[in-house]
Amino acid sequence: MLKVLFEGLGTFLLILTIGLTQDPVAAGLLLIALLYIGFSVLEVHYHPAVSFAVWTIGRRDLSDLLTRAAGQFTGSIAGGFCVSWLTSIPFIPRPSQVTGVAEFIFMEILFSALLVLLFLMMIYPPTRRKRSLFGLVIGAGFTACYLVTVPISGFGLHPGLNVGFSIIDFMDGGRNYVHLPIYLLGPFVGAIIAALIHKNLVKNRIDPHSL
Amino acid sequence: MLKVLFEGLGTFLLILTIGLTQDPVAAGLLLIALLYIGFSVLEVHYHPAVSFAVWTIGRRDLSDLLTRAAGQFTGSIAGGFCVSWLTSIPFIPRPSQVTGVAEFIFMEILFSALLVLLFLMMIYPPTRRKRSLFGLVIGAGFTACYLVTVPISGFGLHPGLNVGFSIIDFMDGGRNYVHLPIYLLGPFVGAIIAALIHKNLVKNRIDPHSL
Amino acid sequence: MLKVLFEGLGTFLLILTIGLTQDPVAAGLLLIALLYIGFSVLEVHYHPAVSFAVWTIGRRDLSDLLTRAAGQFTGSIAGGFCVSWLTSIPFIPRPSQVTGVAEFIFMEILFSALLVLLFLMMIYPPTRRKRSLFGLVIGAGFTACYLVTVPISGFGLHPGLNVGFSIIDFMDGGRNYVHLPIYLLGPFVGAIIAALIHKNLVKNRIDPHSL
Amino acid sequence: MLKVLFEGLGTFLLILTIGLTQDPVAAGLLLIALLYIGFSVLEVHYHPAVSFAVWTIGRRDLSDLLTRAAGQFTGSIAGGFCVSWLTSIPFIPRPSQVTGVAEFIFMEILFSALLVLLFLMMIYPPTRRKRSLFGLVIGAGFTACYLVTVPISGFGLHPGLNVGFSIIDFMDGGRNYVHLPIYLLGPFVGAIIAALIHKNLVKNRIDPHSL
Repeated sequence: MLKVLFEGLGTFLLILTIGLTQDPVAAGLLLIALLYIGFSVLEVHYHPAVSFAVWTIGRRDLSDLLTRAAGQFTGSIAGGFCVSWLTSIPFIPRPSQVTGVAEFIFMEILFSALLVLLFLMMIYPPTRRKRSLFGLVIGAGFTACYLVTVPISGFGLHPGLNVGFSIIDFMDGGRNYVHLPIYLLGPFVGAIIAALIHKNLVKNRIDPHSL
Repeated sequence: MLKVLFEGLGTFLLILTIGLTQDPVAAGLLLIALLYIGFSVLEVHYHPAVSFAVWTIGRRDLSDLLTRAAGQFTGSIAGGFCVSWLTSIPFIPRPSQVTGVAEFIFMEILFSALLVLLFLMMIYPPTRRKRSLFGLVIGAGFTACYLVTVPISGFGLHPGLNVGFSIIDFMDGGRNYVHLPIYLLGPFVGAIIAALIHKNLVKNRIDPHSL
Repeated sequence: MLKVLFEGLGTFLLILTIGLTQDPVAAGLLLIALLYIGFSVLEVHYHPAVSFAVWTIGRRDLSDLLTRAAGQFTGSIAGGFCVSWLTSIPFIPRPSQVTGVAEFIFMEILFSALLVLLFLMMIYPPTRRKRSLFGLVIGAGFTACYLVTVPISGFGLHPGLNVGFSIIDFMDGGRNYVHLPIYLLGPFVGAIIAALIHKNLVKNRIDPHSL
Repeated sequence: MLKVLFEGLGTFLLILTIGLTQDPVAAGLLLIALLYIGFSVLEVHYHPAVSFAVWTIGRRDLSDLLTRAAGQFTGSIAGGFCVSWLTSIPFIPRPSQVTGVAEFIFMEILFSALLVLLFLMMIYPPTRRKRSLFGLVIGAGFTACYLVTVPISGFGLHPGLNVGFSIIDFMDGGRNYVHLPIYLLGPFVGAIIAALIHKNLVKNRIDPHSL
């Protein structure tokens, strides 16, 4: 059960960091630290859509996905409550007021697919050589995705994050949960796209430069 | 055709990121993610001047250059239109009003040469040892080049980027296309300079420290 | 005695940087430089709680801990005085005025545990393969932890830092030493938690991907 | 003569970047790009005090030092003139008005010693294993040193930089050359200190973790 504990604690720390700082750079740097702490022993993801994609490409079984997701969603919700406790100003991820529904869906799916594909390519690279840089590269991509998406679609790209903060907002009488379906489905749709691309790339392992 | 698709999709994401954020750091971090996703299978460049230089030094043939460039320019134009759809404020790359033509040409050629040379040295290093750091280093250099050039010559250093945004500006009745010849030729002149320097460095492979 | 000298000089430079810039990014980048300078010869930590955790997991003996800690605290205090000499505005690490005692203790223990665990996992990884990235990863995590904690609990997470600046504040007639017990005990409690987690992870060295 | 040309061109680009952006982050990222371009073939330093220290520890002979320094100072002066051409506001590195002479000397020597020692430890590590990370780590340290020193002692830590900009300031009738002795001697004194520490560390190659 060390795996569930780590997925939970790590996701808790990640959501806490995003909620407190609302800074994509802080989030990316913290994810780097979390990945190098837990990955080499437990292959932690700290991200439900990544675990879902790993199951989709057949590298882990369903029980692995469910235990990881249980940890990740529990950690996310705990992280959301912890942000509420530590700050007086509630953090509510939502798209900008000028963003339409189509733009919102587009951004969530596109950048979730990019982020999940980056995880898959670094964790299960098409070359045999393992990449010790995986954490630094994933952290860089995580920060980049938030720098692009946050001004348009708010902090999304992570189903746990949005479930956590939506629950707190709902308990405060907020109606931010109306955005939850897109925040929740977007990353999983992106994960399926990423899984399909990953399969195709791994199959075509021409590998011109075995980096 | 996976190669064209990837050059197109990656360049689309890169141009989208530059147009939406106008932030050299976001652009560099996203390029890191894109390079580690596609490079080890498809050796993607996401940059027409880099593909041109790779052809110049004789590592790829003309049909490879043309297919890559087709993907890159298509992706760039699509990225430009996507920025217009997502934002109301159009993004128009142009040199600062106090920048003269000579300064503009100088900056475009100098920093394009630096950027393309960095790609060449990381993709085809003079030592036999492949460099797994290639993506992080190219991303760092990409950010650095924009941090220096943007306040003087605007977002350039990438022919696809400037073709894409010039088309949109022209359709809006703008006259920003007057800068296009320099934005378009500068990087290719820089690429030729970079190819010449790379040839010379690879020939002189003294390699005092095989890093 | 080279070890004590290095722990002292390095901690001096780290505390000087934090005091002068109060910038988590500068602190993290400087720590990267210091770690690559001293680590491969002397395994320097520049952090009393890390040295304490290394002793806790039985990798170094008590005399090693005491000599390192002597250097680290001396360097910290010297760094604090140097900041006072170089600047007219005194630097006083303290929690935000709206932060309660429970929040303060929570942040100090949680993020000290994370930071110390990151050090342990990078210095003594559960896999046999040594990690040359240790310095970059620790620097990233150091910056991330400060980006999250500083707005709430101030610059803490390092017993030497807070002892140094509290002495100077006390000599100026300040009463900032009231925060010292939490700043001092928090990181050591975090270090014990980190040591326990590290032991458990190393024991469970499943190592699915020997990165 | 490729070596002189590269030291000259690279230092030119570095000084141009510092003069145009006055941004430690841009300077560090550009140095990363320059180091990975030129180092593996030519072991470029782009820094007179580093070349001086490399000669001091006996790794290169005097003629090597003199040819490198010729390139570095020529490139620095050319970079300074190029900044004047590109911008209307002259860039004059000088210490803050509240900084005394002792503080100025202290900062220049201390952080030059740190920067040069970082170069030496990464170029000539005490362990046999070469470090492919050398460029990323040196770039991180370069940025860190400027983030700490610039608000107190201005952009220094590089004799070429200060000679270049002092000449331009003098031609404009400025008297900024009064700071030149400290900007010029500080880094070389720091280099001697760094060379002594490096000798001692390499001699004591205990190497507890051959990273």
